[in-house]
Amino acid sequence: MKVAFQGELGAFSQQAIRQLLGPRAKPIARQRFDEVFASLRSGQVEAAALPIENTLAGSVHENYDLLLKYDFEITAETSVRIVHNLVAAPGTAFGDVRQVFSHPVALNQCQDFFSRHKRIERVPFYDTAGSVKMVMEQRPAGGAAIASALAAQIYGGRILKREIEDDRRNFTRFFLLEPNGAKPRTPRGAGRKPWKTSLVFSTRNIPGALFRALSALALRDLNLVKIESRPLRGKPWEYLFYLDLLGHRDEKRVRNALGHLGEMADFLRVLGSYRAA
Amino acid sequence: MKVAFQGELGAFSQQAIRQLLGPRAKPIARQRFDEVFASLRSGQVEAAALPIENTLAGSVHENYDLLLKYDFEITAETSVRIVHNLVAAPGTAFGDVRQVFSHPVALNQCQDFFSRHKRIERVPFYDTAGSVKMVMEQRPAGGAAIASALAAQIYGGRILKREIEDDRRNFTRFFLLEPNGAKPRTPRGAGRKPWKTSLVFSTRNIPGALFRALSALALRDLNLVKIESRPLRGKPWEYLFYLDLLGHRDEKRVRNALGHLGEMADFLRVLGSYRAA
Repeated sequence: MKVAFQGELGAFSQQAIRQLLGPRAKPIARQRFDEVFASLRSGQVEAAALPIENTLAGSVHENYDLLLKYDFEITAETSVRIVHNLVAAPGTAFGDVRQVFSHPVALNQCQDFFSRHKRIERVPFYDTAGSVKMVMEQRPAGGAAIASALAAQIYGGRILKREIEDDRRNFTRFFLLEPNGAKPRTPRGAGRKPWKTSLVFSTRNIPGALFRALSALALRDLNLVKIESRPLRGKPWEYLFYLDLLGHRDEKRVRNALGHLGEMADFLRVLGSYRAA
Repeated sequence: MKVAFQGELGAFSQQAIRQLLGPRAKPIARQRFDEVFASLRSGQVEAAALPIENTLAGSVHENYDLLLKYDFEITAETSVRIVHNLVAAPGTAFGDVRQVFSHPVALNQCQDFFSRHKRIERVPFYDTAGSVKMVMEQRPAGGAAIASALAAQIYGGRILKREIEDDRRNFTRFFLLEPNGAKPRTPRGAGRKPWKTSLVFSTRNIPGALFRALSALALRDLNLVKIESRPLRGKPWEYLFYLDLLGHRDEKRVRNALGHLGEMADFLRVLGSYRAA
């Protein structure tokens, strides 16, 4: 099974694909998120893995926009812990390291490490996994990279220090996308997890519009696990809401709630039902 | 008035400070967001400007966390359009440009530009404004930077191409923070804008907890302009909500709503009342 993702081989998205589909799925790298979606629409790949939110950086609005623009099904989710490792070519010892290459976001998430090792210079690079690839190919003297363990493994790098990130509570949530109508998949270990349903709806912001919309869930004792509002571009006072609830869209209670919500919202779309990660 | 911000001089945060306080406020650069907060607490600066959400990238959770950790007052907000310009040293013509330095996020937001000019190589750099500073100091042959017009002005760069970003609907919202109890400020042109109040509260996710909490606003016809949930770390099924409503905390209706919300929430904090941007 071919699965598109954004980034270089060894990116955290590839880790997400392993967690979602096991080691036999074939990751297909794309440069941009819209290219990931286009690959799935054209049938070049059978699925796509998409980061949707991070515990430190928040929801990726750009990807919610693409979910609305295209019409795919969320068939699974997973959560990847973002672990940063110091990776060098075999033969380079920690004491030799003078320059560390990585994406600036990764460099910024390892500030305590750099404060403790002031001899080491930070050098921004395009991509975390790409920085390992470059260090292995070009072997800059005293050079190392910050990247995932998977990137070290793929490019043959050696991990000199593990888990050098400042904050261990750094997780990214990924969706698996498949063509509309696809059945949910159950990643390894998720068989007993509750069902979750993701939806998007919009309301005009007359006072209490969201309150009334939520009544469709609350009056049926449905549990909400995420809600986020976003102003609709070019339409002042109209809002889009991303919402996740516990339950499968085919359950009677959920079906009724969605019908009721549809009566009150200007627009409603169910993005998929899948096992909670 | 000294105002701390994260980044180099010429960063979009400095533009925010100008919009919030005029050209006479003195921007004080800090490397990290927590250093921005620490500078305000220690009295090294009198205020701080903080990016809190972006139309493409979402809310900056890290900064909401810092707002909760420290106890400052939001006294104003502003919205900065993120415009990327191609900037070079005087004497470099557009036809000479072979390498463009900038933060990878900025480079990624100008992909159409790079597709149209395939001779130009993208080189990741630490910071957008910092890339202009470097190009001006080191004058790499055929080198240019992508940054704000303000960065070009500060470091004496020339703008070769304006507005080369793919998506013009790229805005970042900033808060002005001052010591607890400070009065709201009215940025130029915001005098007739409605009041807004930002708050954070938490509830246990028993079904309908958010619905009940929102009743405190809806039953008083208060308008909600932002809501976002976030799982509480280490406390499964408990959620933090960021909420913005229209109105000032001293208005009777708002005061009553906050009192009522406080009865239902496990925790509630008002972050400030200020003029909407």
